[in-house]
Amino acid sequence: MHAYRSHTCAALTAAHTGETVRLSGWVHRVRDHGGILFIDLRDHYGVTQVLCDPDSPVFKAVEKVRSEWCIRIDGEVKARDPELVNPKLPTGEIEVFIRDMEVLGAVNGDLPLMVFGEQEYPEETRLRYRYLDLRREAMQRNMTLRSDVVSSMRRRMWDQGFREYQTPIITASSPEGARDFLVPSRLHPGKFYALPQAPQQFKQLIMVSGFDKYFQIAPCFRDEDPRADRSPTDFYQLDMEMSFVTQQDVFDTVGPVLQGVFEEYGEGQKVDAYADWPQISYRDAALWYGTDKPDLRNPIKMQVVSEHFAGSGFAIFAKLLEQDGTEIRAIPAPGGGSRKFCDRMNAFAQKEGLPGMGYIFWRDQGEGMEAAGPLAKNIGPERTEAIRQQLELGVGDAAFFLGGKPESFERVAGKARDVIGDELNLTEKDRFAFAWIVDFPIYEKDEETGAIDFEHNPFSMPQGGMAALEGDPLQVLGYQYDLSCNGYEILSGAIRNHKPEIMFKAFEIAGYGEDEVRKRFGGMVNAFQYGAPPHGGCAAGIDRIVMLLADTANIREVIMFPMNQRAEDLMMNAPSDPTSDQLMELGLRVIPQE
Amino acid sequence: MHAYRSHTCAALTAAHTGETVRLSGWVHRVRDHGGILFIDLRDHYGVTQVLCDPDSPVFKAVEKVRSEWCIRIDGEVKARDPELVNPKLPTGEIEVFIRDMEVLGAVNGDLPLMVFGEQEYPEETRLRYRYLDLRREAMQRNMTLRSDVVSSMRRRMWDQGFREYQTPIITASSPEGARDFLVPSRLHPGKFYALPQAPQQFKQLIMVSGFDKYFQIAPCFRDEDPRADRSPTDFYQLDMEMSFVTQQDVFDTVGPVLQGVFEEYGEGQKVDAYADWPQISYRDAALWYGTDKPDLRNPIKMQVVSEHFAGSGFAIFAKLLEQDGTEIRAIPAPGGGSRKFCDRMNAFAQKEGLPGMGYIFWRDQGEGMEAAGPLAKNIGPERTEAIRQQLELGVGDAAFFLGGKPESFERVAGKARDVIGDELNLTEKDRFAFAWIVDFPIYEKDEETGAIDFEHNPFSMPQGGMAALEGDPLQVLGYQYDLSCNGYEILSGAIRNHKPEIMFKAFEIAGYGEDEVRKRFGGMVNAFQYGAPPHGGCAAGIDRIVMLLADTANIREVIMFPMNQRAEDLMMNAPSDPTSDQLMELGLRVIPQE
Repeated sequence: MHAYRSHTCAALTAAHTGETVRLSGWVHRVRDHGGILFIDLRDHYGVTQVLCDPDSPVFKAVEKVRSEWCIRIDGEVKARDPELVNPKLPTGEIEVFIRDMEVLGAVNGDLPLMVFGEQEYPEETRLRYRYLDLRREAMQRNMTLRSDVVSSMRRRMWDQGFREYQTPIITASSPEGARDFLVPSRLHPGKFYALPQAPQQFKQLIMVSGFDKYFQIAPCFRDEDPRADRSPTDFYQLDMEMSFVTQQDVFDTVGPVLQGVFEEYGEGQKVDAYADWPQISYRDAALWYGTDKPDLRNPIKMQVVSEHFAGSGFAIFAKLLEQDGTEIRAIPAPGGGSRKFCDRMNAFAQKEGLPGMGYIFWRDQGEGMEAAGPLAKNIGPERTEAIRQQLELGVGDAAFFLGGKPESFERVAGKARDVIGDELNLTEKDRFAFAWIVDFPIYEKDEETGAIDFEHNPFSMPQGGMAALEGDPLQVLGYQYDLSCNGYEILSGAIRNHKPEIMFKAFEIAGYGEDEVRKRFGGMVNAFQYGAPPHGGCAAGIDRIVMLLADTANIREVIMFPMNQRAEDLMMNAPSDPTSDQLMELGLRVIPQE
Repeated sequence: MHAYRSHTCAALTAAHTGETVRLSGWVHRVRDHGGILFIDLRDHYGVTQVLCDPDSPVFKAVEKVRSEWCIRIDGEVKARDPELVNPKLPTGEIEVFIRDMEVLGAVNGDLPLMVFGEQEYPEETRLRYRYLDLRREAMQRNMTLRSDVVSSMRRRMWDQGFREYQTPIITASSPEGARDFLVPSRLHPGKFYALPQAPQQFKQLIMVSGFDKYFQIAPCFRDEDPRADRSPTDFYQLDMEMSFVTQQDVFDTVGPVLQGVFEEYGEGQKVDAYADWPQISYRDAALWYGTDKPDLRNPIKMQVVSEHFAGSGFAIFAKLLEQDGTEIRAIPAPGGGSRKFCDRMNAFAQKEGLPGMGYIFWRDQGEGMEAAGPLAKNIGPERTEAIRQQLELGVGDAAFFLGGKPESFERVAGKARDVIGDELNLTEKDRFAFAWIVDFPIYEKDEETGAIDFEHNPFSMPQGGMAALEGDPLQVLGYQYDLSCNGYEILSGAIRNHKPEIMFKAFEIAGYGEDEVRKRFGGMVNAFQYGAPPHGGCAAGIDRIVMLLADTANIREVIMFPMNQRAEDLMMNAPSDPTSDQLMELGLRVIPQE
């Protein structure tokens, strides 16, 4: 017989009755029922009930084992009495009578964290004793899910004709907007490598090298300030790039991959078909949803209603509209037609830092439909009715109004839309709703300095090419896109600017001279001088996708050994003090902190 | 029609005759045949001959294109005349007459490296213009091979019931014998993370966490001095670990994976079946082959022949044998029975720093078999004949002899065996020959200080467990193994020491106190207190395996963007100077070099 097991703890059924078997696993829990010891023996695959009666030659030894001891048992499989069969357990038809036992790994001292049961522990405890935390069912499930999701992505990318190529991890700084992690060089003291924030330049170089279709489950490194939904050190992307493609080609390639993954691991939740994912311009997304990562499970779409307030009796809005660049927008709230709800939403807006949200709601108190709320009175019945018709609302519904420069209220409007959708049960649960956000502006203007800078990513091709760059920079849109799912950005990408002359021009507009561009992106810019193909691609956030599928908002629930929120690993003791030999070899000195 | 292509450059056959098609790719070469321009248009998939006659509306534009320009053409597919069909090319039945052309990416200036043709370039040129080098057929093939090999490994591991889990890359120092790359922490100035030399501790923690079967295509980081067959920064391992297993279980798991990969990508070379891979003890490997990574394609097996020289007339060996720990070993050389060959091998040994190799060879000059060479005369016919019988040699064969303490000549003996096998054509080509090397000693003795230290890896379980550690440390063998293929170590692994008390004892013997062990391996040692399962695994070197399959001795031929031998990336400019802001944020100062 094998040294450790003839079966896993999930394998035995009534068909094995009478067999002598060997199992290894962890003591999930022990109970003593009238002198008979019942042990739930657990391994990665399942649980088997094993028991030891006082006649067993190893009874005394078995009496000593405690929760989470790792043991090996030999025993005889017996069918349970019909009334004792546990239909919830794959092994619920049988139990194993222990005849021999070996302690493979005992527990010394008390357990800082129980694996059995639902008790919650502080995150620091869970991370410090991660190897115990990971034995819990939910964590085993999350890690298995993550592994399966990544594997499914890989398979689907191969099926689409992609190959996976590894790009360097110890490399040069790749200015992507976040801070680089640096790695001091021993062979070149005083010089530093950087860990890649993303394989952006390398994947573009792979296209220039003629490889046509690249993907990688790529580790990315950003030295960012910690946040609950972000790893403070490294994270993984499904990174891909293709040559000779348009934006739509990228959508048609990655769409089925993601739809397939969500269908495979979404536990029956509805997944929108990729061919139906709407393509919403960045400007429309801001207008309709108050965000560039809208949650389309929520049907509410905001609208501009400025015309109904211009010159109206509601002086605040009427005056606002006399200023340049201002707008009044409405959030329709079907089913929100009560003063109580409207007041609660108004209070929400105030909590979010706005003066409040005006509202109108429509009711019928037995005398036909009437519009209620102070706003309706101020602007009068005609304008109120025009608004109702534009928003297609009726009795029992409400509308909220926000005014000013859009950037001053858009964020809160988006949040209000979320809350309204939730509170009125308009937001569909059990669905993964996707939307492409397209037509991002290439540039933005710093409101204070008036300087023009890249809005997002300097590597995107401007729509209209060189000609577009001759006009107003703020009107230039890029072949640049995000994919949102249920209110999260899960993917970002672009058709790249592969023409050196257009790239230099684009950088010039943002105030970067040719020398600066060559210094910062020299590897890529040089390559573009030697016959670069048009290319584009995207990167999808794996941690985020697994979080959505696992229905958790904490990234540490889907990473095997995460850092804590201070970017420390207390289990492995990282970061730690270097030795003076190490510092000397690297030619570095630590500046004492005050 | 699609913006860039209706077909790839490998897709068109006679069946497409008459169709109007669109192709994109690189100008592989241009020829002017009597005023007609012939272009080999190349993409990742293949080459298509396109041509442009002076009637074409774009003739003038096409006249301007040069090698490696990236272009898009529209044209009409025509069947070639039967005598012009190129059967070596999948698209050799047709050619495309250009009717329209667009330059997608021109080449500015001269090409520093030609893609077409077989010209060789200095490695620095190839690395600096890697994107051109990678367009060459051999590099496209190597990168494709690497991608396919990794994918095949993954699939085979999944088929064996493993899941892939990612372990941290920014983490704590993992003392594995090489230098760590350090990463300064910004949030904790003066403290450093390290990049993992291998996921050794994490994979063991995954076992303690109850996951049963782990693998990962794992990036590993060692700050090593450069060598031709080694990356100076990062490299990849097929890393795996299993719980509740014996050494043989690991062999039976990884064996079929590797056999399968070599069969799939070995281009028809013979691959030994994993069930037949011999298990050779470390000591036997040293004796028989002079190395712990023997090339078993070479049938020569060395033997101890001390008894035939003890007290013999060959004074040098006879005297040597009077000292403790000395031995005489023979390298049989079937077919090497000529004075010329024997003298050449003797000269080889001298070049390698030994006084020389004695030899005997057997010939028949018409008067029956006779033994020739000075040694035979010295020891006389009886001993010579006894040696011949032990080595099973005959007319036309030779034997070489080395004497002394084995460690003084073993390395040269191994090299001599290689050379003899090669020169006498004994070493089978076109075969992948594997051998498990087992029973590594846990400890070694420093000859100068007499100190006992770990021979290899402190994490291996000693054979015989705690009891074995009570005796002579130098006699303790570990459940530790390597796999060699054609003379290269391609895999290394062990059954781990998962019992804290045995681990502390093992470290104590090597002079490490419990405090030191807890300090250096605290994460793992603490985990072992909480019910650790017996476990073991291995790591196979992916770069090395791809090198064997691609038949190259230079690791940079199988890595997309490798560092040069000074650990620099000249294309991306790494390493480079940090900014003073970066240094300040990290709390570091660079010590000026003298």
